[in-house]
Amino acid sequence: MSLNIAVIGPGLVGSAFINQVKQFQNKKLTLSVIATMNSKKMTLGSSVVDSNIDKFIEYCNANQPCVIVDSTSSESVVTHYPKILQKLHLVTPNKKGFSGSIDLFNQIKSASLENNTFCYHEATVGAGLPIISTLNDLVQTGDEITKIEGIFSGTLSFIFNRFSQIGGSNVSFSQTVKEAKELGYTEPDPRDDLNGLDVARKVVILGRVSGLPLSLDTLQIENIVPKELREADASTFMEQLSNYDDYFSKLNKEALESKSVLRYVGCVDPNGSSVALKKFDASHPFASLKGSDNIIAFYTKRFPNPLIVQGAGAGAEVTAFGMFSDVLKIAKSMVGPI
Amino acid sequence: MSLNIAVIGPGLVGSAFINQVKQFQNKKLTLSVIATMNSKKMTLGSSVVDSNIDKFIEYCNANQPCVIVDSTSSESVVTHYPKILQKLHLVTPNKKGFSGSIDLFNQIKSASLENNTFCYHEATVGAGLPIISTLNDLVQTGDEITKIEGIFSGTLSFIFNRFSQIGGSNVSFSQTVKEAKELGYTEPDPRDDLNGLDVARKVVILGRVSGLPLSLDTLQIENIVPKELREADASTFMEQLSNYDDYFSKLNKEALESKSVLRYVGCVDPNGSSVALKKFDASHPFASLKGSDNIIAFYTKRFPNPLIVQGAGAGAEVTAFGMFSDVLKIAKSMVGPI
Repeated sequence: MSLNIAVIGPGLVGSAFINQVKQFQNKKLTLSVIATMNSKKMTLGSSVVDSNIDKFIEYCNANQPCVIVDSTSSESVVTHYPKILQKLHLVTPNKKGFSGSIDLFNQIKSASLENNTFCYHEATVGAGLPIISTLNDLVQTGDEITKIEGIFSGTLSFIFNRFSQIGGSNVSFSQTVKEAKELGYTEPDPRDDLNGLDVARKVVILGRVSGLPLSLDTLQIENIVPKELREADASTFMEQLSNYDDYFSKLNKEALESKSVLRYVGCVDPNGSSVALKKFDASHPFASLKGSDNIIAFYTKRFPNPLIVQGAGAGAEVTAFGMFSDVLKIAKSMVGPI
Repeated sequence: MSLNIAVIGPGLVGSAFINQVKQFQNKKLTLSVIATMNSKKMTLGSSVVDSNIDKFIEYCNANQPCVIVDSTSSESVVTHYPKILQKLHLVTPNKKGFSGSIDLFNQIKSASLENNTFCYHEATVGAGLPIISTLNDLVQTGDEITKIEGIFSGTLSFIFNRFSQIGGSNVSFSQTVKEAKELGYTEPDPRDDLNGLDVARKVVILGRVSGLPLSLDTLQIENIVPKELREADASTFMEQLSNYDDYFSKLNKEALESKSVLRYVGCVDPNGSSVALKKFDASHPFASLKGSDNIIAFYTKRFPNPLIVQGAGAGAEVTAFGMFSDVLKIAKSMVGPI
């Protein structure tokens, strides 16, 4: 059998995905990338024309069976998901459709359920780590989620693993942020990591998959960008962040004095979800995290000691891996075991 | 749609599974347990007759679509897997079919591939933890496995987490084994845990899923039951184990002197797989494991810092969860998203 794949946004992640797909070889299943689209041009089979998402979807509808892979982070592409899911399967690492308006989220879910089209988004949280699939399995088999807690930002993982460690680290907070930026771990403007919005989107997604109607508007989010620097231009922010080193050093010292470390965590909790800087005891799995790894702990009725998943939660190859795993799940529902 | 389920061996795990299934409610999917079989009797619909696996399979074949769930640890049931898979899907936590003869393993795999019937066995390693599914995703999407290492026995996890900890523990090895037995963590004869065979079976399964033709006959397995006590009767073993406390204390002391702890691990490695007692640095995730949790680290080309999964790897509810997740994967391939 042959499954067609159409990729929107063949950037860094999209290209890694296409490369992984091209190397796939299997007796029962052939995967073909039949169309790609960026913001200007789209390739449909062998013809290159101006981008038009309606025509892109039409082309895919005419070339079944087909999966659309949205590899953008676009807010406009996700508004087309309900239409895509009328006849096509969808795989995406794009958080916007699942963490934005709850109406859109519900429309996406209904479209998938009613039309029997799969909508998988493993890579929206923790890239290729088995997080969404595990949560879905827990929920659908009737387990009760009591809490989900995790470090969902590679950037903030790196920053606090470095800044706040048992035994001390001798670097200031601003210096750690500078390092992270120089190593390419942060967004061009590190405030886009430090404001917690990216983590919040992931918490909203995990909450909704758990059955809690979370939304960005009502979620408690601790923005750790100092108030006075939120409106400053980017270079001023980087220059003046050191003025706030004492504040972070004091927090860190208090944590270390109680044999704890600081970690920036997202938490899904039926009694109150949040995104915040918290203290964790030295023996907690979050305390011994290294590099820029993500970690997530599912506390459930069946797993009172949490089920934990950890590893690289960002990067083109591991994100593409999560997307490709989703595509293979869809393929196996058509062709059987491979 | 309705999917039928037939359970072989409705013991502790089988009953937990059936209970979870009974609580399942979904608009698109109905699950019905239509048959059960133990070593003496089987129930086919409403009739109870003497057990006969051929007739059991026949009944299931006549009541499609159907999944057989083998919840035994029987070596004889697994010989019927190729026949079952001719027309039926199969889900099982029974390790025997996947860690025994490589011929049988290949027959099972071929039967599933050729007949388009699913054969899922998530719960053969780490109960409901997403281990086999993650490994399958890594392998099928073209990642390269460089090493898999883990603590796969809840019993041996408990024993060494207790006996060998940074800061010292003040219990002898024999005392720790006694405690584990009293708490119900061990097999009736703890030597069935300490001999490493159960861990070895899991290593063989993980190896084969990775594409390495491992076998119990050739795998290096460190049996930590003292040689002189291997043939003794069970009570003599428990009485005389304390004679070997010095040996284990010395190993432990050496480990702790190098800021390491002892852990009994299984390792899949293209350059030589093994099951052995090893030292791990205090900062290694295996060193901070608690209770009787399992942990597994996948080292791959895409995940040079390992992808780690940890949590309860034994117990009726979490094993049933793994089996139920597998059943839902099969159901979704028929009915679409649920």
